[in-house]
Amino acid sequence: MKFKLIVTFFFVFLGSSLFAQIPGLERVEPAFWWVGMKDPKLQLLIHGNNIAASSVKLNYPGVKLTEVHKVENPNYLFLDLEIAPSAKPGSFPIVFSASGQQNLQFKYELKARNLAANRAQGVTSKDLIYLLMPDRFSNGDKSNDVVKGMEETTLNRDSIYQRHGGDIQGLMNHLGYLKDLGVTAVWMTPEIENNQPHASYHGYAVTDYYKIDPRFGTNELYKAYVEKCHAMGLKVIKDLVHNHIGTESWLIKDMPMKDWVHQWPKYTNSNFRDAAVMDPHASFIDKKIMLDGWFDHSMADMNESNPYVQNYLTQNHIWWVEYTGLDGFRLDTYPYNDAAYMADWAKKVKAEFPHFSIYGETLVWSVANQAYFTQGNTVNRGFDTQLPGVTDGQIKDAINEALNGKNGWTDGVNRLYSIVAQDFLYQDATRNVIFLDNHDMSRFYSVVGEDFNKYKAGMALLLTMRGIPQMYYGDEILMKNFSNPDGLVRLDFPGGWPGDQVNKFTAADRTEKENEAFNYVQKLANYRKNSTALQTGKLMQYIPQNSVYVYFRYDRQKTVMVVYNSNETPSAITTDRFTERTAGFTKALNVMTGEQLNSISNLGLPAKSVTILELK
Amino acid sequence: MKFKLIVTFFFVFLGSSLFAQIPGLERVEPAFWWVGMKDPKLQLLIHGNNIAASSVKLNYPGVKLTEVHKVENPNYLFLDLEIAPSAKPGSFPIVFSASGQQNLQFKYELKARNLAANRAQGVTSKDLIYLLMPDRFSNGDKSNDVVKGMEETTLNRDSIYQRHGGDIQGLMNHLGYLKDLGVTAVWMTPEIENNQPHASYHGYAVTDYYKIDPRFGTNELYKAYVEKCHAMGLKVIKDLVHNHIGTESWLIKDMPMKDWVHQWPKYTNSNFRDAAVMDPHASFIDKKIMLDGWFDHSMADMNESNPYVQNYLTQNHIWWVEYTGLDGFRLDTYPYNDAAYMADWAKKVKAEFPHFSIYGETLVWSVANQAYFTQGNTVNRGFDTQLPGVTDGQIKDAINEALNGKNGWTDGVNRLYSIVAQDFLYQDATRNVIFLDNHDMSRFYSVVGEDFNKYKAGMALLLTMRGIPQMYYGDEILMKNFSNPDGLVRLDFPGGWPGDQVNKFTAADRTEKENEAFNYVQKLANYRKNSTALQTGKLMQYIPQNSVYVYFRYDRQKTVMVVYNSNETPSAITTDRFTERTAGFTKALNVMTGEQLNSISNLGLPAKSVTILELK
Repeated sequence: MKFKLIVTFFFVFLGSSLFAQIPGLERVEPAFWWVGMKDPKLQLLIHGNNIAASSVKLNYPGVKLTEVHKVENPNYLFLDLEIAPSAKPGSFPIVFSASGQQNLQFKYELKARNLAANRAQGVTSKDLIYLLMPDRFSNGDKSNDVVKGMEETTLNRDSIYQRHGGDIQGLMNHLGYLKDLGVTAVWMTPEIENNQPHASYHGYAVTDYYKIDPRFGTNELYKAYVEKCHAMGLKVIKDLVHNHIGTESWLIKDMPMKDWVHQWPKYTNSNFRDAAVMDPHASFIDKKIMLDGWFDHSMADMNESNPYVQNYLTQNHIWWVEYTGLDGFRLDTYPYNDAAYMADWAKKVKAEFPHFSIYGETLVWSVANQAYFTQGNTVNRGFDTQLPGVTDGQIKDAINEALNGKNGWTDGVNRLYSIVAQDFLYQDATRNVIFLDNHDMSRFYSVVGEDFNKYKAGMALLLTMRGIPQMYYGDEILMKNFSNPDGLVRLDFPGGWPGDQVNKFTAADRTEKENEAFNYVQKLANYRKNSTALQTGKLMQYIPQNSVYVYFRYDRQKTVMVVYNSNETPSAITTDRFTERTAGFTKALNVMTGEQLNSISNLGLPAKSVTILELK
Repeated sequence: MKFKLIVTFFFVFLGSSLFAQIPGLERVEPAFWWVGMKDPKLQLLIHGNNIAASSVKLNYPGVKLTEVHKVENPNYLFLDLEIAPSAKPGSFPIVFSASGQQNLQFKYELKARNLAANRAQGVTSKDLIYLLMPDRFSNGDKSNDVVKGMEETTLNRDSIYQRHGGDIQGLMNHLGYLKDLGVTAVWMTPEIENNQPHASYHGYAVTDYYKIDPRFGTNELYKAYVEKCHAMGLKVIKDLVHNHIGTESWLIKDMPMKDWVHQWPKYTNSNFRDAAVMDPHASFIDKKIMLDGWFDHSMADMNESNPYVQNYLTQNHIWWVEYTGLDGFRLDTYPYNDAAYMADWAKKVKAEFPHFSIYGETLVWSVANQAYFTQGNTVNRGFDTQLPGVTDGQIKDAINEALNGKNGWTDGVNRLYSIVAQDFLYQDATRNVIFLDNHDMSRFYSVVGEDFNKYKAGMALLLTMRGIPQMYYGDEILMKNFSNPDGLVRLDFPGGWPGDQVNKFTAADRTEKENEAFNYVQKLANYRKNSTALQTGKLMQYIPQNSVYVYFRYDRQKTVMVVYNSNETPSAITTDRFTERTAGFTKALNVMTGEQLNSISNLGLPAKSVTILELK
């Protein structure tokens, strides 16, 4: 994630003699766990006043306390537990004894796992992802708009940087709308607690890893949201931030140890250069600043080579999956993380949840740089990132170029062809999430200059190209604006708030053009739901000719021919050069118009349009 | 190579009953060979009227005739010989007997190898290559300007498409000029016979693989040229064309077999799309047309999967190295060739000549596509091309962007940084030939808008960057023009012809600015000759800041700091962020100005300039 913020920076450097005054037992994290996890190990973080002075005891069949770690800050202990496969669900006390003090006690619970089939299902190229920012989608619970005691208590829908009041309940109220649109998976930007004084709405400055932000709801509500999604046949993606932590987090205010985060003699920003990570000629310092520099003043850079940090994050993420049954993770700012840790993390998550999906945000330059971060790539000097997919910014740029660019050898539509051809760099590009826009980018409808033909063509390319398509909330109702200079790409969904003058969730309140957009997306998304060719079929693409780009998605059941005429004028093509894919077919259904073609020898193509033909 | 030609096309399709009327024994190729080659096998091509009706005999100690192949055309025989390591140099008759006819006889010679150390030396990053077109560099022998009986007999220096009369003798006359300039290796565009009716000067439509074009000289003269180069400490690169053959070649006029070249029902041009070769989604037909389509009407596409073609080409190329001692091959239109054959070819050449260098022309889009063709890359699905280096068009484009572009995140000088960072895609990018222009491209001085500061900066980048630098003839005297629309990038070197009004080979005839250019290149090229840091040192580059790009070339002996200020105004930098490379140094020599710097803490940088500092 990327945004501009001017925030006063409080540099955190833990003095060795100065610790927070907190209750004797403040936190045990994770607060509960499960029996029957693949990994028998669990490391509990204990936070309490001078807790390190205590000895620790527990007694439960199948659970061993194998080690108690003291760290720099005496307010912490880390307990290594080993949970045998034979352990049964149940509770037991963990007892902390210090001489001259009353014992402290925490009742620890080991729950039974929920192994229902529709949990941790994974998000694949069969899906259509809908990305939204919970603060900006719908306000379903006015009572949590402002939560007293939290750092940011203003609510101001007129400011793009302040909270607007949207929440999980608001999203839950509109799952039917998404289902109706043809969406099958929902990706919210982080709903985890961000108790920061400024711009806390965006969610990327986590302050409590185990708590849904009270302005969005509760842990229980989030769990109910996942369950409601699953009941409706929708999947849930959680947005994780490994790389940094909100500076207002309790973990920063009373750090377990100095190197919980990357410390610098003076504030040092990341240089944001993914190239420095992979460049064989990079200096040590450029690479270090890229990886260990801070993303922002309000976001301390987690030291992911610290084994306590590693355990803490990994367990937290596994906890959320097992607790709620969610289906996939989107990983924020992927290239900024410690690569070895992230690979280990992914292996552990995949070991617990074999069908689970993971994709990383890689806002980088070129397909090669993007592929560098993907699982099974061959260019990363023998190192496997274990990251199945990435947010495919290269396809986004290429579609924009295909729609807006002037045709040239590798410009215009030839760029899209050329970028797709670079799939040879991936182990499997179908695991990539493809998109036209997101919360950090100008909205697609603005990028195409509010040209409705281009809009439809872009949506058609998105929904027929290889990969996991992702929309950004409001794309379907032509929401617009540019990310620079005003960031107005995060406006509220009209109708999401009680009292909104118009409600674009309903056809009646949408303009004719908005309904045309909605209906176009809806029709194609729902067609795609029933087309294995578009969902999981192979791709064959042809070299563009005369600014017309043709590709096929096909499997044993169906062949879908996609023809993008990038010309500003109607065009026509003969199809004899496509016989590898058209052989055996003589007719076609135009998926979007419903027209039946009795011959596919010659095709007339409207200007700047995508024609989608199901061959017969 | 790339150029535009309108030539009448004679489609060659060998009728099975119609063969050429030729003498009984027209050709034996190769006409001689050597004992002691690594590969004991040799396949002789015999061409003669109905020679297939003959039986063949030979008798020489250590030489076995293992097989006689008849092919479609009875005017051909292919003889498989095996030459034992014990065979001694000498001659022996090969006898062809047909019933009712007089025996035919060819005296075959096996020579002793010349194993002198300065033969087949290889061209490496220690070198500076000078590329020239022999027809356009210097006319040293007026007697061969027009050769009677050849197809093209016009000489017209006013036409860019006709012959100008330059030749090998002309080049030989100016080797001292090149040596003086600091050049260490000469690459001529093909000097092999091109007996084509039109545009035969360019050399890429071979008509006789074993014969230097008589307009350029003789085989013996070419051998003398290589020997003279070696005596002067210069290396020689030969430009090979595997992919296609001039349609006027005797091998096309009386083809051994139909599939000597790729045949098409009607003339089919290559689509020139390298992407189709590597695209996992490519159609069979796009890939086939890319590889097997013809490069031009006048150039038939060789069928490199035909084993007779394979043997013929491979032996021919080995023959030229052993015959002359030349040092490296440049391979034309590399991506258009049959990949499996080219890998096998390269292995065989490297087996015979372990120090020999090979680099392929890869005029492709993106570093990934370029790296795809290189030896040891990991993206080519487990296939090793065995091609050590390529012509690095990505660095050329990036230097142009760094000089002419507007600075942006990956534009301007950041493009060059980003492209160099992609060296992770190569096994070893130092084997790439880097350049600013060549015979197919606009001349560098024109590309930078005849801006002399940019010219010097570009030359400085070229001569300090990793790889094997290559200049194009006349760069050093500011020759200019664009490749489109008029192709005037192949003008004659002024002074190369007797009677030329000015002679830019001499300082006296160069303008002041031309001398400044010449002297700049000369000074840096000669400095480079003695700087192992620039020749073979490691590279460390830093993320550009404030449009200033800094990199270091370094080894145990020396550290050279290169600072490119891409700003249009003078600039200054502090050097504390470069301590990884500057530690231990306090002073510097400005290589180009001779200035001694007593401190390197702060550097003043002229506008749009490269500062080259040898650290002390």
